[in-house]
Amino acid sequence: MTKRIAVIGAGPSGLAQLRAFQSAAQMGAEIPEIVCFEKQDNWGGLWNYTWRTGLDEFGEPVHGSMYRYLWSNGPKEALEFADYSFEEHFGKQIASYPPRAVLFDYIQGRVQKADVRDWIRFRTPVRDVSYDAVTGLFTVTAHDLVGDHAYEEVFDHVIVASGHFSTPNVPEFNGFDRFNGRVLHAHDFRDAREFAGKDILLVGTSYSAEDIGSQCWKYGCRSVTVSHRTAPMGYDWPDNWQEVPLLQKIEGNTATFKDGTTKDVDAVILCTGYRHHFAFLPDDLRLQTANRLATADLYKGVVLTHNPAMFYLGMQDQWFTFNMFDAQAWYVRDVILGRIALPNDPAAMQADVTERVAREDAGQSDHDAICYQGDYIKELISETDYPSFDVDGASDAFFQWKKHKKADIMGFRDNSYRSVITGSMAPAHHTPWKDALDDSLESYLQN
Amino acid sequence: MTKRIAVIGAGPSGLAQLRAFQSAAQMGAEIPEIVCFEKQDNWGGLWNYTWRTGLDEFGEPVHGSMYRYLWSNGPKEALEFADYSFEEHFGKQIASYPPRAVLFDYIQGRVQKADVRDWIRFRTPVRDVSYDAVTGLFTVTAHDLVGDHAYEEVFDHVIVASGHFSTPNVPEFNGFDRFNGRVLHAHDFRDAREFAGKDILLVGTSYSAEDIGSQCWKYGCRSVTVSHRTAPMGYDWPDNWQEVPLLQKIEGNTATFKDGTTKDVDAVILCTGYRHHFAFLPDDLRLQTANRLATADLYKGVVLTHNPAMFYLGMQDQWFTFNMFDAQAWYVRDVILGRIALPNDPAAMQADVTERVAREDAGQSDHDAICYQGDYIKELISETDYPSFDVDGASDAFFQWKKHKKADIMGFRDNSYRSVITGSMAPAHHTPWKDALDDSLESYLQN
Repeated sequence: MTKRIAVIGAGPSGLAQLRAFQSAAQMGAEIPEIVCFEKQDNWGGLWNYTWRTGLDEFGEPVHGSMYRYLWSNGPKEALEFADYSFEEHFGKQIASYPPRAVLFDYIQGRVQKADVRDWIRFRTPVRDVSYDAVTGLFTVTAHDLVGDHAYEEVFDHVIVASGHFSTPNVPEFNGFDRFNGRVLHAHDFRDAREFAGKDILLVGTSYSAEDIGSQCWKYGCRSVTVSHRTAPMGYDWPDNWQEVPLLQKIEGNTATFKDGTTKDVDAVILCTGYRHHFAFLPDDLRLQTANRLATADLYKGVVLTHNPAMFYLGMQDQWFTFNMFDAQAWYVRDVILGRIALPNDPAAMQADVTERVAREDAGQSDHDAICYQGDYIKELISETDYPSFDVDGASDAFFQWKKHKKADIMGFRDNSYRSVITGSMAPAHHTPWKDALDDSLESYLQN
Repeated sequence: MTKRIAVIGAGPSGLAQLRAFQSAAQMGAEIPEIVCFEKQDNWGGLWNYTWRTGLDEFGEPVHGSMYRYLWSNGPKEALEFADYSFEEHFGKQIASYPPRAVLFDYIQGRVQKADVRDWIRFRTPVRDVSYDAVTGLFTVTAHDLVGDHAYEEVFDHVIVASGHFSTPNVPEFNGFDRFNGRVLHAHDFRDAREFAGKDILLVGTSYSAEDIGSQCWKYGCRSVTVSHRTAPMGYDWPDNWQEVPLLQKIEGNTATFKDGTTKDVDAVILCTGYRHHFAFLPDDLRLQTANRLATADLYKGVVLTHNPAMFYLGMQDQWFTFNMFDAQAWYVRDVILGRIALPNDPAAMQADVTERVAREDAGQSDHDAICYQGDYIKELISETDYPSFDVDGASDAFFQWKKHKKADIMGFRDNSYRSVITGSMAPAHHTPWKDALDDSLESYLQN
């Protein structure tokens, strides 16, 4: 086999792809040459924490949106690898909402065991990908940042696993250019202690707003004000937390909202989401999709319909994460290995997309959405040798999680769930989340 | 004439290039087609202020390093356009250290008069440039951000005018990953009022440190601590300003310096310079140079020695700015128009570089450096029809400026100088800089 595969990104999706191929090789298959291009100096993608914001030491946009005191905002039982359990990694069952250092360690453990680090070219962003319809080959232009050397290589397939939570969506509000405090996007949020004693305004109502607000509350900010466009999150917030309608303007330090109320704030944190952004891809290869469960233009959620030699991993909006990336990576691997045949007809692939979109649109609730994405995982893993697992059981963890959040938004992380991989129940954590200021791995593992 | 010229960037350098060609056309010359690619939504480069930091609304790195209350840190009499005086623009002589809005207005005035805005494609970053040695042509790949469409066009010449104060040089110090405040580079500094009442630590001793420290002092920070690697700046600072040796580590909020002293700080601002950064250029076209007066690999400071169809503007470390860019732009124009012949021999061009480097290295002082760069301007304008002006007189403004800074670092901007273009003396500004909190154009022009 002389095929060459380019994987762009060594985060959770890219690493799943490396593990998928290594798993096949381990079972005796002949696999292509895999070259994984990674901009950062280590693997882990968003889980590779950096204090840096903006541009990094090589002038590249900082990939990380991770902040210091982040704990998983969903139960680990809903994202556990089917081929590498938390118990296998840590030698024991651990509590259900690990902080970032614990999850990073877990992600890293599987690929260390698989011994695929040599497949990765670190500090090497991809600058360009072009497709030659005559040869059917891709030319990838990469930049070795350390050697400051740009070069081209040819590949049979390109798998884009560069994530879609790295390029912030940054709207402007009236007065931002004259605001006398800091305006930042969640992407640049790092240490909640910076906002201790401060009045902070968050714009947005999705996970970033909920979690960054909670972090800042936990680490002593004076007040949290969350501005919503459509509807408030509606949790039972602490006393110094309020939800208000959409921000209209800021004058000096005074924010005015759509209902005419005002609030003096020290900082504005835009929790306004992220963009699918692929500056390194030409029009014909660049995915253009909304952030939704059924992406545009991807057959089975991974194969680019108008160029099925090109794949995307993890481009969906996500309830499921690591285990969904695995399902996708195993599927893509088997397409490349010729174990799975794609429809010959682009129209048939596009019909698959249309059907997925319609099915997502038919859903009414978060419950439906979780079931939809669970079904998607089941569909993919039924076509590969990825270890079968109780996807519905993982969905159950999500359903419980949602109830726990509704009951106690600052206490939901104190709950425990049962692993669908090993069947064992997670222990209760030794300290309630709101009191656990030390987010280190060492502290978390003291069960 | 069917030649096509790509100018990358519509800041002061790129605009000088547009004006240079328009000036030739105005005098009856036939000029090539000029296409200027600009990432931002307006011209002015760094002078086009934005509140944004990190990535912009299209996911592109923010170009701007400009902060809200910046006033020119050198006298305007040392940067005045020879073909467009401040008096012509404002209808009167104005004071010597204009704030950013005033300088932006001035820069804009000349190119509005020249009517070259239609030559610029805004919101269009260049992604790639390649050179075909067979055809002698360049292919430029640009990205229309608004239409989200990448495309290629062919040019006879490429002029890189993208600046070198947009990509920060960001070193790491021990403890940054655990610091409980904000760490930012000067590139991301915007509003000094954010730091009112704060203890700030600046790392570095060049213009960014001097000026950002001064801004923060002016707008009420509690203290300024400046850490130096080699030597302190040594001005007569205010009482709440200290200079200390190099930062060794930060623990919690406590910074420790090389002499063992410590200081508790709320924020760290890295004033550690910028990088020449051209992610859109391949190895053979990418300038690799230190930030110095005599750049590497540029004949006459502008012609790429190993591919003389390619030019760079403004890549030098700078005493002179706008008028030097003009001298360069007129020179490059005349090379392209065939009015100036380049040496046929790359070795001869490289010898020119070597001689410039040796001559810069022979200088002993800032005075020598100013004279060196003044001589460079004189050399270039002697070969074109750029209006001759009293470069030595402009240098004199620099010499006075240095004395004024030494005498009163918080008061030097209250001095006035004589225009070498119109011969008139600048008026004293109506308010001392340290008391002039309103930096608007309207306020500044009230003389």
